[in-house]
Amino acid sequence: MEQRLSLISLGVTDLARARDFYAALGWTGQEVQETVFLQAGGIGVVLWSRDKLAADCGLPDAGPGGFGGIALAHNVRSRPEVEEVLAAAAAAGARVTRPAAETFYGGYAGVFCDPDGHAWEVAHNPGFPLAADGSITIPDLGQA
Amino acid sequence: MEQRLSLISLGVTDLARARDFYAALGWTGQEVQETVFLQAGGIGVVLWSRDKLAADCGLPDAGPGGFGGIALAHNVRSRPEVEEVLAAAAAAGARVTRPAAETFYGGYAGVFCDPDGHAWEVAHNPGFPLAADGSITIPDLGQA
Repeated sequence: MEQRLSLISLGVTDLARARDFYAALGWTGQEVQETVFLQAGGIGVVLWSRDKLAADCGLPDAGPGGFGGIALAHNVRSRPEVEEVLAAAAAAGARVTRPAAETFYGGYAGVFCDPDGHAWEVAHNPGFPLAADGSITIPDLGQA
Repeated sequence: MEQRLSLISLGVTDLARARDFYAALGWTGQEVQETVFLQAGGIGVVLWSRDKLAADCGLPDAGPGGFGGIALAHNVRSRPEVEEVLAAAAAAGARVTRPAAETFYGGYAGVFCDPDGHAWEVAHNPGFPLAADGSITIPDLGQA
């Protein structure tokens, strides 16, 4: 299995609400057959019915409400940008579950949950370089 | 908020088990402070304690077991590669929750869950071009 990830599908209970939320954050996509496809760098983010996504994965679904076990991160280039993105998310209807604050790794970050409860950390991490195209490179972390 | 995703953190209950699972699939990473960082194209995949990840997101966690509401996809270049990756995942300890089969969109795909229940679809989708570097481009889907 090559070391690569192609798509991230976010299960949603109300496609229009989810689409409008990401649109309010300035994301544009294509809506086709009750699915929204958003290009995000070299991967795709997909908004699709949570019920159908669970069934498509061959998994039972107890429904939304709790922590799903995955967190997404959107890294930015400055501390003020962390505040700006969290404010934009809140204005778009997100719940800020962790306000922006200093992090143990010398960065600055906060977390919002989208209307379906998917957690997004918004982070300025000076140790993780962000290229002009937005791609991130994990640095040499100095492991033994 | 720029249309970009930087990191995907997978909550795990046994870091060594999760690390060994991805290592068995041929993925290499850096383990630092009870965290494993894996470069995947222009993003990073992070393995970290599910408890800590939930707390870090400011979210209560009912624990693993159900569908988390997110599915990841690993797209490949051929149908035989779908079978190969699913077999490799099963050999590494994954549960195949949907065997490889034709899909409604003219592709061929199956789904496995990693030891923490995170769903990965392995797909050959001729309509979603995969570049030499593994990045994916969502094509013009002909929306109105």
